[in-house]
Amino acid sequence: MIGLAENRYGKSRVRLVKVKRHPVLHDFLEWTLEILLQGDFESCFVDGDNSKTLPTDTMKNTVYSLARSSSAACMEEFGKELIAFLLDRNPQVSAGQVKLSEKKWEHLPIDGKPHPTTFLLASAEVQTAEVTQNRSGRFAVRSGLENLTILKTAGSEFVGFIKDSLTTLPEASDRLFGTTVRARWGYASADVAFETLRSSIRETLLRVFAGHTSKSVQHTLYAMGEAALEKVREIDDIELTMPNIHCLPVDLSRFGQDNPNEIFVPIDEPHGYIEARIRRQG
Amino acid sequence: MIGLAENRYGKSRVRLVKVKRHPVLHDFLEWTLEILLQGDFESCFVDGDNSKTLPTDTMKNTVYSLARSSSAACMEEFGKELIAFLLDRNPQVSAGQVKLSEKKWEHLPIDGKPHPTTFLLASAEVQTAEVTQNRSGRFAVRSGLENLTILKTAGSEFVGFIKDSLTTLPEASDRLFGTTVRARWGYASADVAFETLRSSIRETLLRVFAGHTSKSVQHTLYAMGEAALEKVREIDDIELTMPNIHCLPVDLSRFGQDNPNEIFVPIDEPHGYIEARIRRQG
Amino acid sequence: MIGLAENRYGKSRVRLVKVKRHPVLHDFLEWTLEILLQGDFESCFVDGDNSKTLPTDTMKNTVYSLARSSSAACMEEFGKELIAFLLDRNPQVSAGQVKLSEKKWEHLPIDGKPHPTTFLLASAEVQTAEVTQNRSGRFAVRSGLENLTILKTAGSEFVGFIKDSLTTLPEASDRLFGTTVRARWGYASADVAFETLRSSIRETLLRVFAGHTSKSVQHTLYAMGEAALEKVREIDDIELTMPNIHCLPVDLSRFGQDNPNEIFVPIDEPHGYIEARIRRQG
Amino acid sequence: MIGLAENRYGKSRVRLVKVKRHPVLHDFLEWTLEILLQGDFESCFVDGDNSKTLPTDTMKNTVYSLARSSSAACMEEFGKELIAFLLDRNPQVSAGQVKLSEKKWEHLPIDGKPHPTTFLLASAEVQTAEVTQNRSGRFAVRSGLENLTILKTAGSEFVGFIKDSLTTLPEASDRLFGTTVRARWGYASADVAFETLRSSIRETLLRVFAGHTSKSVQHTLYAMGEAALEKVREIDDIELTMPNIHCLPVDLSRFGQDNPNEIFVPIDEPHGYIEARIRRQG
Repeated sequence: MIGLAENRYGKSRVRLVKVKRHPVLHDFLEWTLEILLQGDFESCFVDGDNSKTLPTDTMKNTVYSLARSSSAACMEEFGKELIAFLLDRNPQVSAGQVKLSEKKWEHLPIDGKPHPTTFLLASAEVQTAEVTQNRSGRFAVRSGLENLTILKTAGSEFVGFIKDSLTTLPEASDRLFGTTVRARWGYASADVAFETLRSSIRETLLRVFAGHTSKSVQHTLYAMGEAALEKVREIDDIELTMPNIHCLPVDLSRFGQDNPNEIFVPIDEPHGYIEARIRRQG
Repeated sequence: MIGLAENRYGKSRVRLVKVKRHPVLHDFLEWTLEILLQGDFESCFVDGDNSKTLPTDTMKNTVYSLARSSSAACMEEFGKELIAFLLDRNPQVSAGQVKLSEKKWEHLPIDGKPHPTTFLLASAEVQTAEVTQNRSGRFAVRSGLENLTILKTAGSEFVGFIKDSLTTLPEASDRLFGTTVRARWGYASADVAFETLRSSIRETLLRVFAGHTSKSVQHTLYAMGEAALEKVREIDDIELTMPNIHCLPVDLSRFGQDNPNEIFVPIDEPHGYIEARIRRQG
Repeated sequence: MIGLAENRYGKSRVRLVKVKRHPVLHDFLEWTLEILLQGDFESCFVDGDNSKTLPTDTMKNTVYSLARSSSAACMEEFGKELIAFLLDRNPQVSAGQVKLSEKKWEHLPIDGKPHPTTFLLASAEVQTAEVTQNRSGRFAVRSGLENLTILKTAGSEFVGFIKDSLTTLPEASDRLFGTTVRARWGYASADVAFETLRSSIRETLLRVFAGHTSKSVQHTLYAMGEAALEKVREIDDIELTMPNIHCLPVDLSRFGQDNPNEIFVPIDEPHGYIEARIRRQG
Repeated sequence: MIGLAENRYGKSRVRLVKVKRHPVLHDFLEWTLEILLQGDFESCFVDGDNSKTLPTDTMKNTVYSLARSSSAACMEEFGKELIAFLLDRNPQVSAGQVKLSEKKWEHLPIDGKPHPTTFLLASAEVQTAEVTQNRSGRFAVRSGLENLTILKTAGSEFVGFIKDSLTTLPEASDRLFGTTVRARWGYASADVAFETLRSSIRETLLRVFAGHTSKSVQHTLYAMGEAALEKVREIDDIELTMPNIHCLPVDLSRFGQDNPNEIFVPIDEPHGYIEARIRRQG
């Protein structure tokens, strides 16, 4: 017999801009949301019965309507409101998830001061949040960031690794170490000061990356995650994904030149891929 | 106490072209691979000890060396060889995964016949395979396809859905239904005729999409998956992800014109998102 | 003194789907349009006077309204209608340009026959057209195609080139030759059978690429363009851009293996870039 | 008769990282280059004669070799060196062009101070330069920037435009104005302090964008260009491309809510497109 196992549906890439016109400074937020619902949808899939189907277009409308009435100050709070609203109105839904990302708009600096109503897209980095709730349970919140591209020109080596018959990589006592960080951390409680903790975690990750004497990507990744957990007691675990974006030293000896670790070719592919989750234990 | 939970590492975006120069026709394959290993890497992460670390550069070399000696006829077989090779040489590795994708290169048709040595990139569609093995266990193989973009102009309605205070979507008795399919299916055994089954599944998915009288994306998705499972006994389950790529009818009444379901705006965002896994049960 | 030199404005990425519901087969077209106008807009730029400004939003509406009433059978004819319409209603506009591209939707083949109402996005290739008109002049039409990715595994060499102190490239008597063609051709008249000529040119370009004994990308590019001009008398010139998408043979001798021109690494960057315009002369 | 009109060839997407290890701070530059040559290449195209062809692979090598020996402090100076080098060694080349772009890597700020050896990719914005030389002539240099995304929430209106039968856009006395600026300016001389002028131009463009009372994109674009020409006497002209990235106010009245210019949907397509060149005259 054939039947439905897991299923979920919803709306992706719902884009929202929210402007707050305070007397002096304006706030400008740009979010992209994804809403995914699970529940008692067997008859929809199997028989084409739409009587329990909330259209994904309505989910989109819900985002805009709620954005107007909400006083949520951050993605995590808005995500909680949105799921609670959808679960409350839709008994056929057993669980919901909202994923949000926020672009890095900043007040444009003019003469060293932030301009009150002009904004600059300051980076490709985005901040993220995921809020999940089962009907009977509590909110689970994971926050994170993506597309944070960083590189260090000192304090990174890679030696002592396995050499087998297929190894051609030379040991490097002083290599460039570049990566695009994706981080995601989970909270013990869903009632915390998300924005304050986010700043503290991001600042900690960057500080450790800069200061660490790196023996490998793995080594630095772990040190970054460990420091975040030590710094911010409200989080239980942190996942870090740090691809190794390689910069290959150019062999200039073919042209009678030396290359004192100065001229490199950056390549996007292939790239090393390292990920781990570090958690509070015991 | 803080410690390492899950971790894995490897090489992404390893690109391989393999040409077979048969007397009449050449074969041309282009694959992109990702290799991910898990194992006893605690000391690497925590202490920066690289003595158990196989460099990701060596994994890349392994792909090319093995591609030369291998007689694997498809991605699944090559993935099995690659994992077995890596597990055999690296006792510190407890599990490995290889993800492969293949571009849709086809012999260029000239005068209705395939040219023997000239190829056309026939579509953005890619075929995929994932092979996983725990040291003590058997190969688990999932095959699939991505980026298969299809659309039907007849046989699709969406009516009878929930209308609440935030619903503005009109019912549609004859709508365009476009999607970009991602499919992934799993086999009961890792020793099957992967390429033959792949063709059969792909052909079944397309045939059902075309012929189905669709009451919703969910309804058609389920029918497609069910048919694939009925047609191909060797697979246990199939996951289908089918975003609803909307084409919105343009309101031309503002200009004194009718629009008999003829003029549409296609939009990429937002889009509906529907996914489900359908399986053999009982 | 400072003043305005060239200027133009308009609407980009206007997306249009048009469905024709014939009794048996449906037609499905997806176009993306860009409209650019030039004219007497000095006061708009310098003084912020919008009295001569046709909003770009109105241009977008014009596309949809005209798409409903038009009987144009191809992009070139629709582009001519659109410019004529805009110039007719806007005396302040001195010249207009419409750029169009068409996605490669094809009827899905089922059992060897095209399904009447189901479509497959058959390739990343797009067909293009550009129509330009000065108020006092005639239509200038250039048609083309982009993203046509092709590759040959035989009949391509690159030898006899300059070797200087910075040359490390070995001569290759049998190399892979892959490229993504962009072509654009101009017509002597704006009243021709655009679609018939387009098919003929595209078929000629592919046939020559496949059959040519190539001494360089330049050599094959020229042969392709020359053949198109010989085949289709209605065109005056053809521009071809053919980047050299390199596939590098892997050196397997490091692993004690040979590589009889069989294992390659395809790379996207850097790539060779070759473009030329070939024309009827004298 | 059929013959070759314009042609050029070269190497695209040559990527270069250059690290300068000063005693305290390191410098880190990432550039992408394109080299294009024109000249006496008729026999190459028509006959497949490669005797005058400098391989594009050698051009790539030239970039790396020259990067090592060069003391050029900016893209413009390096571009001049590179062209001069290629023209000097290749008498068959009549003209060369080098296009460069630089990623926005900045020292990572830690505790308010730039970390000496750690860098952050601070934005998707890139700085650009184009250097062109005909064998007999002088260097022509154009500098610029791309991907500078900015937005203002006050000081922007769009009223008084043409209303015709296809106009549905309402007048807006207070709209969001977002754009992604591409700028390119030309110098009267090729011997100027490129980096100082670049900073001054960029700062002027941003300052005017923020402060301008905008009646249209055109109006603000002109004011930005005019100010740059007034501020920096060394440039002759400036081209600005400023797409209008629309943020559409959401109609919440359907849900019984007002929208006091607070909730918007940002869309990527379609978008307005405005470009102009402003120059010193007379």
